[in-house]
Amino acid sequence: MEPSSGSRDARPAGTLVAVVLPAGGSGERLGGATPKQFCAVQGRPLISYTVRAMERISWISDIIVVVSPENVETMKSIIEKYSHKRVTVVKGGITRHRSIFNGLKVFAESELSNHLLQKPEIVIIHDAVRPFVEEDILSKVVMAAKEYGAAGAIRPLVSTVIASAADGCLDHSLERARYRASEMPQAFLFDIIYKAYQQCTDYDLDYGTECLHLALKYCETNAKLVEGPADLWKVTYKRDLYAAESIIKDNLSQEVCVITDVKEAVAQVGFHFHESLKSQIKVEAFSVSLSKIDSHLQSIFSAQCYNFVCVNDKKYAIEETQHLVDMLEKSNTPLLNPVVLILVQLDISEKVSFNIGMEELTRIKKFAREVKKKNILVYGLLMQYK
Amino acid sequence: MEPSSGSRDARPAGTLVAVVLPAGGSGERLGGATPKQFCAVQGRPLISYTVRAMERISWISDIIVVVSPENVETMKSIIEKYSHKRVTVVKGGITRHRSIFNGLKVFAESELSNHLLQKPEIVIIHDAVRPFVEEDILSKVVMAAKEYGAAGAIRPLVSTVIASAADGCLDHSLERARYRASEMPQAFLFDIIYKAYQQCTDYDLDYGTECLHLALKYCETNAKLVEGPADLWKVTYKRDLYAAESIIKDNLSQEVCVITDVKEAVAQVGFHFHESLKSQIKVEAFSVSLSKIDSHLQSIFSAQCYNFVCVNDKKYAIEETQHLVDMLEKSNTPLLNPVVLILVQLDISEKVSFNIGMEELTRIKKFAREVKKKNILVYGLLMQYK
Repeated sequence: MEPSSGSRDARPAGTLVAVVLPAGGSGERLGGATPKQFCAVQGRPLISYTVRAMERISWISDIIVVVSPENVETMKSIIEKYSHKRVTVVKGGITRHRSIFNGLKVFAESELSNHLLQKPEIVIIHDAVRPFVEEDILSKVVMAAKEYGAAGAIRPLVSTVIASAADGCLDHSLERARYRASEMPQAFLFDIIYKAYQQCTDYDLDYGTECLHLALKYCETNAKLVEGPADLWKVTYKRDLYAAESIIKDNLSQEVCVITDVKEAVAQVGFHFHESLKSQIKVEAFSVSLSKIDSHLQSIFSAQCYNFVCVNDKKYAIEETQHLVDMLEKSNTPLLNPVVLILVQLDISEKVSFNIGMEELTRIKKFAREVKKKNILVYGLLMQYK
Repeated sequence: MEPSSGSRDARPAGTLVAVVLPAGGSGERLGGATPKQFCAVQGRPLISYTVRAMERISWISDIIVVVSPENVETMKSIIEKYSHKRVTVVKGGITRHRSIFNGLKVFAESELSNHLLQKPEIVIIHDAVRPFVEEDILSKVVMAAKEYGAAGAIRPLVSTVIASAADGCLDHSLERARYRASEMPQAFLFDIIYKAYQQCTDYDLDYGTECLHLALKYCETNAKLVEGPADLWKVTYKRDLYAAESIIKDNLSQEVCVITDVKEAVAQVGFHFHESLKSQIKVEAFSVSLSKIDSHLQSIFSAQCYNFVCVNDKKYAIEETQHLVDMLEKSNTPLLNPVVLILVQLDISEKVSFNIGMEELTRIKKFAREVKKKNILVYGLLMQYK
């Protein structure tokens, strides 16, 4: 098993890892009727971003999404619409802990699902409403859980925490530097967290909120705390949906991928594009034979790059771009947002005058019109290069 | 002293109230060079929204903004640009507590400012980076401070709070229901908080973060904790700036004010507008003689309404609308965002045919062009009404 990208030194190679995403919340703090995990952000339910963040990571074997019984069909239709893979939908309980417990049972109790999934060594517990989780922190909590039995992401406190007395007045305030906010993801040796849930009381299941606490109380496992990045935050209020939307929009324009075929002159032009764009925007540039499926290209697609410059020898331009479009389509990248593809046709012949025949123009227009239906916007550019 | 709007049962009538806004932070958590309080949101520095939220409230006498010495000139230019009133800029110290203390000194120590400001009975301490504070919560903390000596807004915790041991592992987690996040605004009897700052140690001034704690430790004052609304949140990360921007944009389109002159037929049309709009949007509608300055109108302006429908008898339409524009201009409402003003000219004569002469059309166009310079967009509508 190979990770798709990033943090290659700390990848949980050879470890079977599954994810449980509790998504049974009612979203009352958002003040809306739709639970926040199902709220549309840029036209797509929030939970779909979180599932995507997980499925991008090749070393995660199973993604268990736990939803309240009335949302099982909604969740299944989201999985179908966005072609999510490796996802199992499980009915949740009436509290967060009961939902997580149900999610864990699909690896251990055959009566709860049609087929028992293979029990993982490590299980990650994450929130459906934290869509911006990256491989780096997932990898860190998994590695720490392997060593310590349990691990969780933490963040500095934004506000001072205080305790109130019975009369509604201040009792005492906590020294901010000594405490941390417990965030997600958390990871556990499966046997530890499953045992903790089996042994814990109904009071824990009904009123508790903290998985790390259960591991400590029932398995004497002191979780390793791992400092996480700021983007782990949880979509809780309406303002968080606004923020999520802006971040997603921002990300769309932050990267461009320059792809050229392997021919020397063409690759040179790709290199010039790379050099002139890199001060403005994050650029991936490489030469590849587009007629062959390339794993590097696939990882680019799954990282949700939405901007491509495709440089080709004029003769093969449309054919090679068609390959790219096919791959993009398979990756489902354009489902959410339009992909912008700039098709650069390179004229490397010796003739001084260049002209593009009506026939060719018609072909490009037709091609652009075709792929627009797939939400891929093609713009053409003809360059003479010697 | 009269409050401008809202919560009329709990206004701190007859109490001299001042505000200290510590704004000395460096904004390191935003990851940018500009401290967050000076970041532009919809083209205007964040702190200007917060100052505006305070100056809208008539029972607040003085607003003390405490900024780091290098930002004094920036702050002064913001005050001038956005015509903020009742604001005094004070140089901050190297920590939050030292900055607040400096802010308080302008009421007590004449050597720190050119003229000693009148000492308030109650001082509100608020953050410059919490722009969405409303009169209701300010009024509540002031009333509670009058009774208890100190008061502060609190919110439920979003994440569980945990304590870590020396080895970076979980020591214990706090039961979430027993604790609260301490937010702003807070309010104090001036004499209590000033005494607390005078008596507290250098350690408190350098490492402390919680004003309520100082009041408790040095004046045995247990602050009253007041549950605050969700929009008190503090702009801390870049995502919070995104959220603030979306909220501000949202607010612009949420209210329309229908103004008619007092003539019966005209007022009737205004009533119809009100009835048909009110299911879609928040509508304020009233009849007023626009040639007289009206305090209700002024409170509408200061509440940042950006949409107006102005219904007039055709004969006086432009003159009366001109009065409205003058008042809008004085209120500085259009400085930040365009004001949309729909000028409805009512033809209430008995003649069946209505037509608008070229001369009148030219007048309206000229008027619209003039006021556009002031960021007020005028659209004309001619109605025949019997």
